[in-house]
Amino acid sequence: MSNTNLSKFPVVVVIGGGFGGIEVVKQLADKPVEVVLIDKHNYHTFQPLLYQVATGSLEAESIAFSLRKNFSSQKNLRFRNTEVTHIDTATNTVDTTIGSIKYDYLVIATGSTTNFFGNKEIEHYAMPMKSIPEALNLRYLVLQNLEEAILKPSKEERASYLSFVLVGAGPTGVELAGALAELRNHVLNQDYPELTKEEMKVYLVDFLPKVLGPFSDEGSKAAQDFLTGMGVELLLNVKVESYDGNEIKFEGGKTIHTKNVIWSAGVMGVIPDGIAKEGIERGNRIRVDNICRMVGSNNIFAIGDVAAMITDETPKGHPGVAQVAIQMGQATGKNIIRLLREEQTVPFKYNDKGSLATIGRNKAVADLGKIKFQGFFAWLVWMFVHLISLMGGRNRVVVFINWVASYLTYNGGTRLIIRSFKREELVQKDEQVSKPD
Amino acid sequence: MSNTNLSKFPVVVVIGGGFGGIEVVKQLADKPVEVVLIDKHNYHTFQPLLYQVATGSLEAESIAFSLRKNFSSQKNLRFRNTEVTHIDTATNTVDTTIGSIKYDYLVIATGSTTNFFGNKEIEHYAMPMKSIPEALNLRYLVLQNLEEAILKPSKEERASYLSFVLVGAGPTGVELAGALAELRNHVLNQDYPELTKEEMKVYLVDFLPKVLGPFSDEGSKAAQDFLTGMGVELLLNVKVESYDGNEIKFEGGKTIHTKNVIWSAGVMGVIPDGIAKEGIERGNRIRVDNICRMVGSNNIFAIGDVAAMITDETPKGHPGVAQVAIQMGQATGKNIIRLLREEQTVPFKYNDKGSLATIGRNKAVADLGKIKFQGFFAWLVWMFVHLISLMGGRNRVVVFINWVASYLTYNGGTRLIIRSFKREELVQKDEQVSKPD
Repeated sequence: MSNTNLSKFPVVVVIGGGFGGIEVVKQLADKPVEVVLIDKHNYHTFQPLLYQVATGSLEAESIAFSLRKNFSSQKNLRFRNTEVTHIDTATNTVDTTIGSIKYDYLVIATGSTTNFFGNKEIEHYAMPMKSIPEALNLRYLVLQNLEEAILKPSKEERASYLSFVLVGAGPTGVELAGALAELRNHVLNQDYPELTKEEMKVYLVDFLPKVLGPFSDEGSKAAQDFLTGMGVELLLNVKVESYDGNEIKFEGGKTIHTKNVIWSAGVMGVIPDGIAKEGIERGNRIRVDNICRMVGSNNIFAIGDVAAMITDETPKGHPGVAQVAIQMGQATGKNIIRLLREEQTVPFKYNDKGSLATIGRNKAVADLGKIKFQGFFAWLVWMFVHLISLMGGRNRVVVFINWVASYLTYNGGTRLIIRSFKREELVQKDEQVSKPD
Repeated sequence: MSNTNLSKFPVVVVIGGGFGGIEVVKQLADKPVEVVLIDKHNYHTFQPLLYQVATGSLEAESIAFSLRKNFSSQKNLRFRNTEVTHIDTATNTVDTTIGSIKYDYLVIATGSTTNFFGNKEIEHYAMPMKSIPEALNLRYLVLQNLEEAILKPSKEERASYLSFVLVGAGPTGVELAGALAELRNHVLNQDYPELTKEEMKVYLVDFLPKVLGPFSDEGSKAAQDFLTGMGVELLLNVKVESYDGNEIKFEGGKTIHTKNVIWSAGVMGVIPDGIAKEGIERGNRIRVDNICRMVGSNNIFAIGDVAAMITDETPKGHPGVAQVAIQMGQATGKNIIRLLREEQTVPFKYNDKGSLATIGRNKAVADLGKIKFQGFFAWLVWMFVHLISLMGGRNRVVVFINWVASYLTYNGGTRLIIRSFKREELVQKDEQVSKPD
């Protein structure tokens, strides 16, 4: 990538084409900078709908968008589909698998990955769901285990294939639990006449006493009622002790036999090699100042899930949600331009637009500041917000059609096993998890 | 699968959920038989549009349909997602990876796979495109090689990444050549500003002196004109000698440096183990009588690409096209019912509805019996026929939207590298090729 250094403009390198990274890139369009966007995938992932890819309701490609295509008209941008191997902050160099590049400004927008809190056994056997490949692995595992269940002659043998334990009752866990419950209630017996819906169990586990921890009590309570009404079994105030691929054990002695544990109990920032350890906060996040600049650096920024802006107002930093990443990306793009023009930078201020989570058909919860509502109208708002946030007109239309088809038929989605998921490949999954995603 | 044997009805086992197999299953709906459909995939593949999956114009899931979902209302059917390992014709037993099953009637509808005519080196390095996983491998290879090309400093080094050699100028080769030429003409420089369309080469090779061999001379000539007009270089009357992953050699001494050889020069039937060798015809097809019954058997049928119905009228059997499989499937389903009722069977008669092939935007050729036409109207007919033939209303709408978006923007499709294709995994590809698909 050495030719970049011949450029007469300052070089801004952005690592990661997620919600934050692409906003930085957009802000720098038509500005006198040379922008290089690096991502190990050649697409942007709309993570809020990953769970629908996992349950086969949406195609992976409906929630992804080619980064090249998206930015094809931005002439000062070059995209590189590669992985960062090291950052040398002394020489302002990013090393990648395809070469090195010098930067004037660097934006680390690498996001987060699943946090197993150091439990290697759980990391090995439980399924994460933070990327499209992981969501597809989960889909194939679920479908394969339904196929396996059919072949087992006794109810006891079928049970572990038909039990789904979701650890972590944040929006991801809640939405996936709802989607699996709908699969159970509307699709299972229709597509798998050998199985009854009573045999399939969906458990949602959290160590907190409520689901949707950061939501209002009203929203959280409504979500719990929706879930239990759909047949999801809630295990709250419960800590996971171990999972060996066949049996999950909880503190206090309860166990569940299951081949399907999905882990959404926490995330941690993905920090490229070379960032000084002393600036790293809880959750593996890079400590930044009030303009998202890495503490101790003049020209390195970190945004979104990988950033920890610890201030008096935000002693734990900001929540790991798309809106924070988007707003940090916009602010950082603008501040880089201000720095280039030697203007005063503007401190970042998060504008919390509220939270939405869907549980199922006609069932969602909305906490929009002081306005809180649940049910059908919240569900319409959820759909509308997600459709307009998707990248690409084609994706919006395709997702809309999928949702309409699902709504009308109660049996939407494709549920194809395009590539079978093999237990042995879990080792490969582990490798993926330890790298930036 | 032993419980099947307890059934009071005769058991009809159908191997393969392709165009032929699903027609047999449909004919047997509500009839006094127990039907077991076996497929190694849990979906039906609409093969005529595989090339659009390979070029990233369509999602894989738009041209596939869940076999379970499709037949969920057919109460006398059970689907098993498994592979057949052996057929014991003496005991009327099919062995699979998940157990054995006795049949009263067996329909072999296993289709065909790519024929490399025994050249192991070409089989190892060239890309086949007969299944969705193969089409996705090809997509990822093409996209990865475009990414690689960007990194090469000289035109000479870029050339082999940007040269695409398609061997076999039947409908698959022609349609893929057209699609790659459109990628080159409309997308390449837009999405990859570092590359110019002049650098990308698309070659279409055949040992025959014309493209679309089985078409009329008029249709074939029109296709050639369309292709050359779009910048495809035709190498006709040319035989491939070798391909080592970097250089393809032709008889007579010509060579092309290329990392991308796509092989659609021939197919061969996929015959399950256990079928007597003496009944196997050219192209690895099972010789059948005029009701698609395997010669020498009373209760085994073969249909579609894996069947060779050699008669005075069809001395080479029927062409390996979807229509033959569909019609043979319908006829065989009906004849099995007649046999059960001890009625007279009806000989199969192929009703050739004609041939269509598309080359690109507004460009297609249609040979419909004596009616032959080319260009825009043929292209409309091609789109209409393919849309109505797709399984599933949702798929039809999604494909239609993709086509409209592509038509309007000249830059449709998604072109995502969801799972990177690695050369080392070619070994795995070889394994796939040798098994029924």
